[in-house]
Amino acid sequence: MLHLPQEPGLVIREIERADQKIIDGLGKCGVATVHEAQGRKGLLASYMRPIFSNASVAASAVTVLAPPMDNWMLHVAIEQIKPGDILVLGTSSPSDAGYFGDLLATSALSRGCKGLVIDAGVRDVKDLSEMGFPVWSKAIGAQGCVKETLGSVNVDIVCAGEFVRAGDVIVADDDGVCVVRREEAARVLEKALARIANEDAKRKQFEQGVLGLDLYNMREKLAEKGLKYV
Amino acid sequence: MLHLPQEPGLVIREIERADQKIIDGLGKCGVATVHEAQGRKGLLASYMRPIFSNASVAASAVTVLAPPMDNWMLHVAIEQIKPGDILVLGTSSPSDAGYFGDLLATSALSRGCKGLVIDAGVRDVKDLSEMGFPVWSKAIGAQGCVKETLGSVNVDIVCAGEFVRAGDVIVADDDGVCVVRREEAARVLEKALARIANEDAKRKQFEQGVLGLDLYNMREKLAEKGLKYV
Amino acid sequence: MLHLPQEPGLVIREIERADQKIIDGLGKCGVATVHEAQGRKGLLASYMRPIFSNASVAASAVTVLAPPMDNWMLHVAIEQIKPGDILVLGTSSPSDAGYFGDLLATSALSRGCKGLVIDAGVRDVKDLSEMGFPVWSKAIGAQGCVKETLGSVNVDIVCAGEFVRAGDVIVADDDGVCVVRREEAARVLEKALARIANEDAKRKQFEQGVLGLDLYNMREKLAEKGLKYV
Amino acid sequence: MLHLPQEPGLVIREIERADQKIIDGLGKCGVATVHEAQGRKGLLASYMRPIFSNASVAASAVTVLAPPMDNWMLHVAIEQIKPGDILVLGTSSPSDAGYFGDLLATSALSRGCKGLVIDAGVRDVKDLSEMGFPVWSKAIGAQGCVKETLGSVNVDIVCAGEFVRAGDVIVADDDGVCVVRREEAARVLEKALARIANEDAKRKQFEQGVLGLDLYNMREKLAEKGLKYV
Amino acid sequence: MLHLPQEPGLVIREIERADQKIIDGLGKCGVATVHEAQGRKGLLASYMRPIFSNASVAASAVTVLAPPMDNWMLHVAIEQIKPGDILVLGTSSPSDAGYFGDLLATSALSRGCKGLVIDAGVRDVKDLSEMGFPVWSKAIGAQGCVKETLGSVNVDIVCAGEFVRAGDVIVADDDGVCVVRREEAARVLEKALARIANEDAKRKQFEQGVLGLDLYNMREKLAEKGLKYV
Amino acid sequence: MLHLPQEPGLVIREIERADQKIIDGLGKCGVATVHEAQGRKGLLASYMRPIFSNASVAASAVTVLAPPMDNWMLHVAIEQIKPGDILVLGTSSPSDAGYFGDLLATSALSRGCKGLVIDAGVRDVKDLSEMGFPVWSKAIGAQGCVKETLGSVNVDIVCAGEFVRAGDVIVADDDGVCVVRREEAARVLEKALARIANEDAKRKQFEQGVLGLDLYNMREKLAEKGLKYV
Repeated sequence: MLHLPQEPGLVIREIERADQKIIDGLGKCGVATVHEAQGRKGLLASYMRPIFSNASVAASAVTVLAPPMDNWMLHVAIEQIKPGDILVLGTSSPSDAGYFGDLLATSALSRGCKGLVIDAGVRDVKDLSEMGFPVWSKAIGAQGCVKETLGSVNVDIVCAGEFVRAGDVIVADDDGVCVVRREEAARVLEKALARIANEDAKRKQFEQGVLGLDLYNMREKLAEKGLKYV
Repeated sequence: MLHLPQEPGLVIREIERADQKIIDGLGKCGVATVHEAQGRKGLLASYMRPIFSNASVAASAVTVLAPPMDNWMLHVAIEQIKPGDILVLGTSSPSDAGYFGDLLATSALSRGCKGLVIDAGVRDVKDLSEMGFPVWSKAIGAQGCVKETLGSVNVDIVCAGEFVRAGDVIVADDDGVCVVRREEAARVLEKALARIANEDAKRKQFEQGVLGLDLYNMREKLAEKGLKYV
Repeated sequence: MLHLPQEPGLVIREIERADQKIIDGLGKCGVATVHEAQGRKGLLASYMRPIFSNASVAASAVTVLAPPMDNWMLHVAIEQIKPGDILVLGTSSPSDAGYFGDLLATSALSRGCKGLVIDAGVRDVKDLSEMGFPVWSKAIGAQGCVKETLGSVNVDIVCAGEFVRAGDVIVADDDGVCVVRREEAARVLEKALARIANEDAKRKQFEQGVLGLDLYNMREKLAEKGLKYV
Repeated sequence: MLHLPQEPGLVIREIERADQKIIDGLGKCGVATVHEAQGRKGLLASYMRPIFSNASVAASAVTVLAPPMDNWMLHVAIEQIKPGDILVLGTSSPSDAGYFGDLLATSALSRGCKGLVIDAGVRDVKDLSEMGFPVWSKAIGAQGCVKETLGSVNVDIVCAGEFVRAGDVIVADDDGVCVVRREEAARVLEKALARIANEDAKRKQFEQGVLGLDLYNMREKLAEKGLKYV
Repeated sequence: MLHLPQEPGLVIREIERADQKIIDGLGKCGVATVHEAQGRKGLLASYMRPIFSNASVAASAVTVLAPPMDNWMLHVAIEQIKPGDILVLGTSSPSDAGYFGDLLATSALSRGCKGLVIDAGVRDVKDLSEMGFPVWSKAIGAQGCVKETLGSVNVDIVCAGEFVRAGDVIVADDDGVCVVRREEAARVLEKALARIANEDAKRKQFEQGVLGLDLYNMREKLAEKGLKYV
Repeated sequence: MLHLPQEPGLVIREIERADQKIIDGLGKCGVATVHEAQGRKGLLASYMRPIFSNASVAASAVTVLAPPMDNWMLHVAIEQIKPGDILVLGTSSPSDAGYFGDLLATSALSRGCKGLVIDAGVRDVKDLSEMGFPVWSKAIGAQGCVKETLGSVNVDIVCAGEFVRAGDVIVADDDGVCVVRREEAARVLEKALARIANEDAKRKQFEQGVLGLDLYNMREKLAEKGLKYV
């Protein structure tokens, strides 16, 4: 079902989520593997960077559509969080303002929130780092927001160039952020685990000095294409 | 009094500074709080990033107006530094060159300098990090500068989109850089401290699971605006 | 000799390298000093950033010319690596795709590779950081590559705005990346060491509070140019 | 109904379109008015610029989801065009390559195509200008594409940050590009026409020298907010 | 006198302007010449581009400090315009929104306004072009503004990286925008006219094939620096 | 032969050029066709834009390596121009300064120069447009240059990401700029002409409504890849 309301001002309370074990499994696979496993789709724009290194999360999206420079809807969204969810915010017009800081993080953490993916700015990054609250954002900046205009919660949004629905699975780590449709999560996990098993075997070969040229039987195909050694 | 000299080549020796206790107080409040407290003005462009994390400083600005790719004036400026000052450099034309490195930092430190805010590039960032000399800059790069053309010291400058006068208070941390007019510093500190007290109380409420919707009495206003839950 | 082949699909097996002691010496000098010592040339664009801090390397370039979003040639290039080499990849058309991850790094490490300089994207940055495999790249991103189209190995390339030949010396650290022509490496090292000796002497002076104005005898020249103190 | 296929390789033949009179009416209103009339949503990113001035179009979207640097799907999409449609292309990963030139434009024109909105590059811009074929694109560039990988046609896409479905109405002119949901088109046109009537009346007042301060009764509200004249 | 009010919400009615003949003279000289004549200062950032070609203007600045996405102050500013003035808008936080369109232009024109320089966005560019109302802006876009928050008029602002005071002279053409302090306008015009006379003489020499090497006596200096011909 | 001098300050007087008829032929083919014909190499970065529309040129490169903000070498280069040449300028460090204006254009025109390709800025664009002197540049801006430091003329340079040698053929039009190695020019022209003949035939087919799907026999291959129509 599609949630593209004509007007902002809609909060959808009930959302479907993927199975928690599948979500956890995707998190262990990481962004690069998950992105490959689902056919190279769902990757958010590479300008989305984590505010601290080594953060890694997989969680169900609680989506927020927010006006530029207005973070009112984040308060509305936090009430809709269930333990294990992640906030995903897109704006109705571009903004680098700091929508989120340590107070909102404290509130979100108290609801079991796993982090934030925001196509806008974030502030109090030192506090957030100390709290271990991971954020992937477009910008870091202290510019504050107002609370004047309605947006929506748990509607379909575009975040950093990707379409995200409430309940879709977000996988995020140092390589960026990837969205997995909740209906496809089980299938993607299966493929991702197969890739990892395959990669583990290859890693050992590589460690022993086997070349990719041999491991993947590339030499013949390269020669056919015309590769010449001099 | 305004210092917009017709020609470069002016060094103003005597500058007024804010009270040191007030400066220190602003530093403890941090950029995000200070920026809010003074009515959301004075924030430098968000492209100004610290060269290492967890740096935090508040200090009086010794301003430098420098030609593009020419760092001669930094030597002139260092002589004007008093303990507790921070160098703030704007250019007369955009430049990403590396104006500042470990030798200048050593010299600046010997005068009691607290750091550098530079709308241009910086180099030797590993050395500067080891020295604990904080820098907020537009770029990191090894491209060197010449020493050919005059600029000015302690005149009014534009740095990263903000107007800065010598003696204004610079507050900088992981969230960015904010300038506070020295005449307004006491008033801004007062407001900032009030904000912090207020936020501490709220943080405790948030930790206990109280929602912002209730803490700020937002529900009624949201309903008036037309927010609908489905 | 110039290697600008008319068609892609060329692998040059034998390349000349600079003397290892000279390469090591340049690495100790660092990018900023080497760049100055060779007359301020050879610096790659400042958008080339290390994936982790405090990495520092000097090595002989094994060059890779790759099509956009196609990392096939990296497998070909790895076979050409000798211990102490670094991979340097330029693309025939701009790309931010993730050409390189932990499997390729494992393979490259098994050949004695010192790192990667890539005018494109890289992924698995957490793994690469844990392996201590340094990368300087234009982007971080999980977007994968195909293996469809030939490029070349050890031909002349442009990487991040600079011309790089196989066997040229690459010096890279937190300040960026610099290329030194292998024929000039000895001469550049000599000049770099002289600069360092000179800078060590100056650093001690600066630590004792001597000003650059005096150390470099700038006061007279500044006065001649018209600098005025008020 | 939502069209987010799990795999690329889907062509939807039958799409619903808005009423042609309504589409034409929206075109006469222009992007700025339509965007306001529908509550300030649907505006594509401002980096989307026309390749020549004074172009203006309103049409039904035939959507194309294309791989990076691969324009194969444009040939597939052209067969689906009905007179009065416009091609709208989003990519599965960012690309500035030139997906579209004079041959494709000739083919599209023969099907009655009104133009192209493309979150990627375009080439042969002189020919396209002479043909009067309007294009709004992210880039101009001669870099060609391959025809190797499937995408989809008439599925839901994200183009320049906005969600676009096949059959949605695209309005584009010198101010940029706006998407109107086909179900909302009639309602938006009504509001847009009301705005225009209102603006025409105001324009006459402004021409006669009436100030906005008086026309909109702003003086009192400004005074209440604290505006001071000195 | 400096106008840096502590709070927004200030309108300064009386501003000093430079002599109209001097302003007109500067306009004839053009941006490049004026910028050189005043010692290469005052040039706004090169991202400020005209919305149509061949526009050229010199006028006295009526300055506007506006909040992000809020164009209320433009209505306040238009009342302060005297024939021959130009609006110059800086924002208190970055914004690409469309602050200005054909209605405001109609109002401004009725007051004798010569154009707009805006460190933000503009819309209705086709209408503005047809009206011949020149605008130099950071962006073109249809995103509308609200009228909620006070800014100030005729206070000191920063616009596109340059400090601008009410009554300063703005010179703008296809090369960009330059600000001349009103106190320096006469002196700058004098120098600019001298440059033009000098350039006219040189242009004739160049037309006849005389080389700059000879016209400027560069050969000797180049040889001294070490230039070698092979 | 490779021209990578150790030090700047070298002017190479004698350069080889491609046959004029071949150069002219390449010009008629245009950038997009030439780029395809030579195997999709040689395209300068897409940020290189013409200062006016409908300009089109093919010419032999007289290369200029210039320091940042220093246009001295352009005077040196103009003496080396033969009728039919084009100036191609790369910088030793990035710069957006205005290296070139109407006086230099007048001088260059008197030598028979066909235009300028510059990886930096240009000014007096209105004058240059009126003179019909085409320029492809990274920036437009009035910021002037000094004449202090040596560069080189007719050495190998990197311009907008591409390697350019003196005497290589530059093809430039509204689509951008492409460099063709002079040794390959005849072969590339041959292929380009074949492409054009082929495209002319196809254009007629497209005009008559034949689809690319049929003209290129794509349907079978698409079906094999799995394309599904619903």
